[in-house]
Amino acid sequence: MQFSAHDIAMLLNGTVEGDASVTVNQLAKIEEAGEGCLSFLSNPKYEQYLYTTNASIVIVNNGQELTGPVKATLIRVENAYSAFTLVLQQYNSFRLNKKGIEEPNFIHPSAKVGADAYIGAFAYIGQDVKIGDNCKIYPNVNIGDNVTLGNNVTLFAGATVYFDCVIGNNVTIHSGAVIGSDGFGFAPNPDGSYSKIPQIGNVILEDDVEVGSNTTIDRATMGSTIIRKGTKIDNLIQIAHNVEIGSNTVIAAQSGISGSTKIGDRVVIGGQVGIAGHLHIANGTQFSAQTGINSSITEEGKVWGGTPYMPYKDYLRAHAKLRKLPELDRKVYELEKLIEELRKGQAAE
Amino acid sequence: MQFSAHDIAMLLNGTVEGDASVTVNQLAKIEEAGEGCLSFLSNPKYEQYLYTTNASIVIVNNGQELTGPVKATLIRVENAYSAFTLVLQQYNSFRLNKKGIEEPNFIHPSAKVGADAYIGAFAYIGQDVKIGDNCKIYPNVNIGDNVTLGNNVTLFAGATVYFDCVIGNNVTIHSGAVIGSDGFGFAPNPDGSYSKIPQIGNVILEDDVEVGSNTTIDRATMGSTIIRKGTKIDNLIQIAHNVEIGSNTVIAAQSGISGSTKIGDRVVIGGQVGIAGHLHIANGTQFSAQTGINSSITEEGKVWGGTPYMPYKDYLRAHAKLRKLPELDRKVYELEKLIEELRKGQAAE
Amino acid sequence: MQFSAHDIAMLLNGTVEGDASVTVNQLAKIEEAGEGCLSFLSNPKYEQYLYTTNASIVIVNNGQELTGPVKATLIRVENAYSAFTLVLQQYNSFRLNKKGIEEPNFIHPSAKVGADAYIGAFAYIGQDVKIGDNCKIYPNVNIGDNVTLGNNVTLFAGATVYFDCVIGNNVTIHSGAVIGSDGFGFAPNPDGSYSKIPQIGNVILEDDVEVGSNTTIDRATMGSTIIRKGTKIDNLIQIAHNVEIGSNTVIAAQSGISGSTKIGDRVVIGGQVGIAGHLHIANGTQFSAQTGINSSITEEGKVWGGTPYMPYKDYLRAHAKLRKLPELDRKVYELEKLIEELRKGQAAE
Repeated sequence: MQFSAHDIAMLLNGTVEGDASVTVNQLAKIEEAGEGCLSFLSNPKYEQYLYTTNASIVIVNNGQELTGPVKATLIRVENAYSAFTLVLQQYNSFRLNKKGIEEPNFIHPSAKVGADAYIGAFAYIGQDVKIGDNCKIYPNVNIGDNVTLGNNVTLFAGATVYFDCVIGNNVTIHSGAVIGSDGFGFAPNPDGSYSKIPQIGNVILEDDVEVGSNTTIDRATMGSTIIRKGTKIDNLIQIAHNVEIGSNTVIAAQSGISGSTKIGDRVVIGGQVGIAGHLHIANGTQFSAQTGINSSITEEGKVWGGTPYMPYKDYLRAHAKLRKLPELDRKVYELEKLIEELRKGQAAE
Repeated sequence: MQFSAHDIAMLLNGTVEGDASVTVNQLAKIEEAGEGCLSFLSNPKYEQYLYTTNASIVIVNNGQELTGPVKATLIRVENAYSAFTLVLQQYNSFRLNKKGIEEPNFIHPSAKVGADAYIGAFAYIGQDVKIGDNCKIYPNVNIGDNVTLGNNVTLFAGATVYFDCVIGNNVTIHSGAVIGSDGFGFAPNPDGSYSKIPQIGNVILEDDVEVGSNTTIDRATMGSTIIRKGTKIDNLIQIAHNVEIGSNTVIAAQSGISGSTKIGDRVVIGGQVGIAGHLHIANGTQFSAQTGINSSITEEGKVWGGTPYMPYKDYLRAHAKLRKLPELDRKVYELEKLIEELRKGQAAE
Repeated sequence: MQFSAHDIAMLLNGTVEGDASVTVNQLAKIEEAGEGCLSFLSNPKYEQYLYTTNASIVIVNNGQELTGPVKATLIRVENAYSAFTLVLQQYNSFRLNKKGIEEPNFIHPSAKVGADAYIGAFAYIGQDVKIGDNCKIYPNVNIGDNVTLGNNVTLFAGATVYFDCVIGNNVTIHSGAVIGSDGFGFAPNPDGSYSKIPQIGNVILEDDVEVGSNTTIDRATMGSTIIRKGTKIDNLIQIAHNVEIGSNTVIAAQSGISGSTKIGDRVVIGGQVGIAGHLHIANGTQFSAQTGINSSITEEGKVWGGTPYMPYKDYLRAHAKLRKLPELDRKVYELEKLIEELRKGQAAE
């Protein structure tokens, strides 16, 4: 894909300064850009790069003054940062704008696929599946029987959705993610073996949810595991059966949430956090990376850290002291000796 | 799938009270059930819901007395809880009772597939593979050359078994799990680079093992990585080369077991636990979530927590004090000052 | 595959002692070997097994003296350990020496595939993909548009490489690994919802990199996430957007590296380690398992442990004391009482 400065200025409602016919095919930061790159300057502290960059085109604010010669073609706009973000989005929608039905695929005769779909080769679409409009089903995706997908859903290559799950509008699921596998439920028998507890529920992902690659979200034992509108889930995360996660919550990579726990809205969960089962986590709670949570949190909007968790500031203070624990131990030992001496001294009087 | 009260009563050897022709197509908890749902009442503390539930059918104990009008059709049985579990299992076996060979698939001419198989589209079955009776190979599953599967094995969509691995009877492997990838073995060279140590062993999963989605179990360097009968492994777990895990052990999500470690029978491992390599863990050991284990455990049946691990009760006590460590530090500082004063006082006498 | 003692002696430039026609089809440790196995004796402490092993063939050093009767055929070589490693490598290259194009596959007409390729059934090779010579693309692999692969690259079943990524020579990617999924970048909106920041960069894996099963490496927001030459990455690891990892670094399973962090050369990272974003980690740094790193490390070659991290020796010492923290707490309490008594005593004088 090649775009000229003229094309980009049209898109951004900007004005060209320099050669309008120069073309770009890549986007890059101004300090790293080479020939053929489009870049931008918004933060004044990067202004020096404007005079040294190899970018072919740079988007700048209307008011940007020049204190030296600039090799690149400039496009002047109201807000260079927003304009560049718009270009990023346009670029991305081009890259991801796949259409059409590739062969071979497996689409069960009873399945319904909406308008403008992309169905990659080796995609599997089971019995009674309903897929909305403008969905992109990449190669080797597995959609089990009776799954429903809303509009504008993207399932990247190799993602799997088990039977009966419900996916809302504008949901993105990355490669290798597994939605709806069995919850980890086994009942112990007297002989030490385990019997499987059937997991007959499903998973519901509401609108605007994004699920990272190789994340696993288990189906409910009965009822639904639910991820509410706008929540964003990173890679390699475990969400167990019957968990409910509120709206606009974000969870960083490799965190795990145990069975039946309810997480509120606007919660922020760092990487490698572990949350035990059957808990309630209040709205707006924040967990720093590697926190371990073993009881419910009812106060909203607090920040926590450590395992087991404590207020984040206490965690920082306690762990700063932890490293000096051997010193403290030694001090106490010395105090014991001093006190023994003092006592002898007093007794001798 | 629709079932009438009459059908269900026949299955459960129960008696219908109310409209025997009413049908259900879902299972739900009595407090959450809507029309078309089958539910049950076993625990007396939920009895209130019997009179308010929207369930179409409720399974109750023979002796259940009614203190008000009930809208739902009742099915009376010896033990409502067991009867409902039976229905759950029946329901699940219906949902999972896929049969037949979907096209296109890849079955090597030398492979042998037993009776009553389900082979999903885009499933790959390599050279000399032997598959027992009543196996379900979902779409996009990969079975490498020379793999053996017992009877009643289910591999969900996108699961992968590398060449030479051996899977017992009644094993279930969920989507995205990888059985038999290379162990992480590299020998350092004098120039700082690494040479791969060939990993020529395999993985053996004995009967009744269940493996969760996106879990990885590496093949042995030589010999076998072994998971013994009845052990249940959750999602996103790492099991390294040459590990051996005993019988009826359960491992919760995101735990990792390093190379050559031997885990006993009936061990219970919480989520996000890490176990170092070349250790022995005694039968019946329990690890709370996020425990880190760096030495062998020879005493059976003990409970451990913390990183590095300690007896669980010590862990709880130590971490309760950890949060107050800054206070303790301050106390010691004040004691030092007090003692200094006392010593001056004594010296002055 | 069957090999005679004669064949193996030819390969190893060794001399046969015993029946040269005996054949083997497996490799095993001398203490575990059964009939049909090839084994070796190098370490004198295993010499006892030479007289009891059921191995059919044992490779021994030229100078190995016999103090009793040996049932197995011996092959005498200069260095038994090196010779056995050579056999391992040969065996492995036989097992992994797949060739040819299986059907059905999807190879975009614009894609270029080099000489001697293996393309498994249901492999997907997108538009403008360039694949070097002697590559092995196992079944159900997904290679997105515009991806470049060097020579001697192996992608095991179900691995996924997103569009625009660049894979060097001699790279191995195990099953379920995902290279190039979107970085986790979202900008908060005033209403609490999040807008996706387009992730338009790519991932570059340099020569000789190995990536374990179900590991995820996210594409850069702009520019590239880079793994440099010779670095080895285990299973279930998360590498976030814009991370750069140096040469000959090794990372054990389930570790996670957050966005934009730069890791040096020859770094050794244990299992379940977490590294925060935007940090620099010096060359030769070592992290023990489960370490949590929240600031940059500039000193080369140091060993660290704990969360937050500290020098490994401090970590061991501090955590040894941690378990005894309740005792220390009690001691301080008792000291406070003693001092109170002493002060009363002094005041009374």
